[in-house]
Amino acid sequence: MNRIITIGREFGSGGREFGRRLAEELGIEYYDKEIVKEISKHTKLSEEYVQQIIEHTPHRLYPITIGHSMSYVEDYSFSQAQAVFQAQAKILKELAEKSDCVIVGRCADYILKDYKPFDIFVYADLDSRVKRCLERRAEGEEVLSEKQMRRKIKKIDRNRAKYYSFYAGRKWGDKSNYDLCINTTDTVIKDLVPVIAKIFK
Amino acid sequence: MNRIITIGREFGSGGREFGRRLAEELGIEYYDKEIVKEISKHTKLSEEYVQQIIEHTPHRLYPITIGHSMSYVEDYSFSQAQAVFQAQAKILKELAEKSDCVIVGRCADYILKDYKPFDIFVYADLDSRVKRCLERRAEGEEVLSEKQMRRKIKKIDRNRAKYYSFYAGRKWGDKSNYDLCINTTDTVIKDLVPVIAKIFK
Repeated sequence: MNRIITIGREFGSGGREFGRRLAEELGIEYYDKEIVKEISKHTKLSEEYVQQIIEHTPHRLYPITIGHSMSYVEDYSFSQAQAVFQAQAKILKELAEKSDCVIVGRCADYILKDYKPFDIFVYADLDSRVKRCLERRAEGEEVLSEKQMRRKIKKIDRNRAKYYSFYAGRKWGDKSNYDLCINTTDTVIKDLVPVIAKIFK
Repeated sequence: MNRIITIGREFGSGGREFGRRLAEELGIEYYDKEIVKEISKHTKLSEEYVQQIIEHTPHRLYPITIGHSMSYVEDYSFSQAQAVFQAQAKILKELAEKSDCVIVGRCADYILKDYKPFDIFVYADLDSRVKRCLERRAEGEEVLSEKQMRRKIKKIDRNRAKYYSFYAGRKWGDKSNYDLCINTTDTVIKDLVPVIAKIFK
């Protein structure tokens, strides 16, 4: 069976960088945004829309008002979200069959549990996440104040937690779901990776 | 400043073995039960009684009935528990000043926070903890059924959580209080230690 390493991460904790560097250090595949591209191909939905879907928990029903009474109807986006999740599960399993790899996010720890992955959760305190995000703003990205960034981080993590709990039926970030939880507050990820990589050598 | 490593651990997770081996691997001091001996010397209370105190959260007041009315009086054991905690804090700080060391339990992560320790929490799923405890029964120790062991583990952890939360004012085992959380389910601790030790080399 291939060695699968999954990385769950709080937004701004450096989990993505950690995953990418870990894959480099181990000389194995790394999957992150590539998965969105693949889902897009499978579902014929645009990458942007797929991205939007996988960042939010679907609502099964939405309320409509007919005359004076309120009713609920099946939300079309709910079936799209289901289709995206199914495509995602299929793709992750194909990747896991193909070779050793590091997969960031995407409920991979849950979806691939039969492949006995090594599950890592990367987190950090809020202040250091805000700092990290402010320092690493990508070119063209909106300039946010510290307060706005704090709000953005909290919102993204709230969505991740809801999404994970919706599909995996368990609590996002709960240490019992992971083999190792790494606090990256005051940590240089570049220095940490070779150490953690030793676990897999 | 000396390198201080603190280990919090769920009962039966192998956290104590992990701490002892880590200290050996790093060639630094290891403190666990020695602390109880020192507290006993400082407080003039017997080691057994100290042990009993530090395994339970103190109750400030206890109820007595005078005539038909109920009243609360200061529990003598509460002041003993306070004395024990103060002695413990004093001893831990002395040890932290003396040399690099690994300290298991004793709210050391909280008490020594000014020494910027590296805080590790060791945990495992309940089944593997039960198995571990049943396999490693010390000579002369009471033989327990699986069910009894399960109950014992839960009770000890409940007390640890209460004790920690009483003194540290935060949640025991909450990953945000630790630098690294290690799940030892299906893990051979002897093999894991040299890898983790690399963090400190």
